[in-house]
Amino acid sequence: MTPEHARAHLNSLAKPPGSLGRLEDLAVRLCVVQQTLCPRATPRRCVLFAADHGVVTEGVSAWSSEVTRLMVSAIVSGGAASSVLAATTGTELRLIDVGVVGPGLPDGPVHRNRKVRAGSRNLALEPSLTVQEFHEAVAVGELEAVEAWRSGIVVVAAGEMGIGNTTAASCLTALLTKSPAEATVGPGAGASEEALARKRQIVADVVARGRPRLADDPETVIASMCGLEIAAIAGFHHRASALGLTVVLDGFVATAAALVADHLWPGVARSMIAAHQSAEPGHAVALAHLGLEPALDTWQMRLGEGTGALLVMPLLDAAAAIVARMATFDQVGIDTDGS
Amino acid sequence: MTPEHARAHLNSLAKPPGSLGRLEDLAVRLCVVQQTLCPRATPRRCVLFAADHGVVTEGVSAWSSEVTRLMVSAIVSGGAASSVLAATTGTELRLIDVGVVGPGLPDGPVHRNRKVRAGSRNLALEPSLTVQEFHEAVAVGELEAVEAWRSGIVVVAAGEMGIGNTTAASCLTALLTKSPAEATVGPGAGASEEALARKRQIVADVVARGRPRLADDPETVIASMCGLEIAAIAGFHHRASALGLTVVLDGFVATAAALVADHLWPGVARSMIAAHQSAEPGHAVALAHLGLEPALDTWQMRLGEGTGALLVMPLLDAAAAIVARMATFDQVGIDTDGS
Repeated sequence: MTPEHARAHLNSLAKPPGSLGRLEDLAVRLCVVQQTLCPRATPRRCVLFAADHGVVTEGVSAWSSEVTRLMVSAIVSGGAASSVLAATTGTELRLIDVGVVGPGLPDGPVHRNRKVRAGSRNLALEPSLTVQEFHEAVAVGELEAVEAWRSGIVVVAAGEMGIGNTTAASCLTALLTKSPAEATVGPGAGASEEALARKRQIVADVVARGRPRLADDPETVIASMCGLEIAAIAGFHHRASALGLTVVLDGFVATAAALVADHLWPGVARSMIAAHQSAEPGHAVALAHLGLEPALDTWQMRLGEGTGALLVMPLLDAAAAIVARMATFDQVGIDTDGS
Repeated sequence: MTPEHARAHLNSLAKPPGSLGRLEDLAVRLCVVQQTLCPRATPRRCVLFAADHGVVTEGVSAWSSEVTRLMVSAIVSGGAASSVLAATTGTELRLIDVGVVGPGLPDGPVHRNRKVRAGSRNLALEPSLTVQEFHEAVAVGELEAVEAWRSGIVVVAAGEMGIGNTTAASCLTALLTKSPAEATVGPGAGASEEALARKRQIVADVVARGRPRLADDPETVIASMCGLEIAAIAGFHHRASALGLTVVLDGFVATAAALVADHLWPGVARSMIAAHQSAEPGHAVALAHLGLEPALDTWQMRLGEGTGALLVMPLLDAAAAIVARMATFDQVGIDTDGS
């Protein structure tokens, strides 16, 4: 199934060719990812991975690490943006605590405690994760992908919650796309001008240290600036893709994780549909590196928590339905020369 | 309920202020239109109005008038883009034949025969409708708005099917926004370069004839270049707005009808949410005149049939749910100074 094949099918349907605009682009992408003209957008699941970041002590965020734990509770109890959008869009939601500081919630239908360690170390001062910790977190994500696949899920998305994680995502994006720190650093969930300047300096320093060793020892370098939830999402993306699931790619942090997955296990982007382009400047850089076109390209979302991916789910329903259920010009009795 | 009031409520919710981007803009608009912080996006209905256009004999379209009747059948039998998107987005669909050439379908749960006449006259040669025909078609639309309101519908959209109707829409848009014909004429559902040049000339001539008389006799001038389905949509928009329904505005032709409604009964745009910005150049001109910001601004749809409005319905569900169901920072236990 090439894009041309899918496009030809769309052009046979009872509408002027291309007249559904970007919805047709989304439909073509869905057909190509799923290799079928009967694509499916359900059943689907969004798995959020949560962890804390030692770099928060550098003052890179307007929020304290305690907010991660409080937002995990809000997500699990149904009051967070991701909870509401999951319910509204008919998407199962899971939250995996892969390294939130403080006591974890009990396991339940939404929440699972899979802490690898109590947050990553301060990447400005030392490697944030060892290679072993990185792989443990990757394995947590892989397991979730396998569980989704075993449950008959067709479409998945990964999201994140972790105060400070745009600093790690900026480092990884600059490192893996070979971009300067200025191109990948933004305010994240909120940062003053002063905090932003510090964040930019940290990212520049960390990437400068890591870059010369990337070719020789990619896992050590990636682990040194990675968050636990980012490692878990990389594993989730990798395994979901390998299992043939369709992966809806959320915002900046999830896309940094996709860069990690793509670097270690090339080809992962073939399973991906980019939901939106975040207001974070590094996101466009990362999407371009992966060769992905975001569906909602002007919506300026920057919340994370899988919210961008969730919002696109009903548009995927529409794209799938157009392909699979519209009548052709022939069936309607219209000659395509317009008579 | 001012936009500032709605925005303040959104900023109290457990997310960085503004971090849901355009979804928050849509939520604010929904709150302001409905004058509540508990907005609703369901139950909803999309009413399509279909009619033919005498101007098709001038060769302005790649399609013949017969296609209108065939597409009406396709819509009613469930195979058209609008049928599929209505089903996928949980939106009731109605199709009102207000002037399709040829025998009408029998009335049924989706279709109603309300023919005012068998298509409009050729607006290039003579007034397309008399004032009386215009008002009869307006009344057909008004009746559908009343029926929706009586059925407990909260959100409505009007769409259209009518080969040749972008020529009428271009005339009305140029007339009512005081724009030159070049700014309002595009290929519509498909037109060759030659057809496009002819269309542009017809629009320029018709608008030049009508413009001097607009202030003195608006109904005669508008009727002279109007289609039956456009008149019906103007009536639908007017009455739906007067009854307090939320009106999701579809593409170029529906927006030309909104211009008609706004000219004859000012203020109708206060009830409106613009779904998307069409690939047709006149649409941006018309939306700007009405002071409306389209939700999907880069999606390049140009099919009509209510498809743009239908695609936005699940995004309205998401916007309504965010406002009404998210927890506040206080409820989550987070100080908004970030601690």
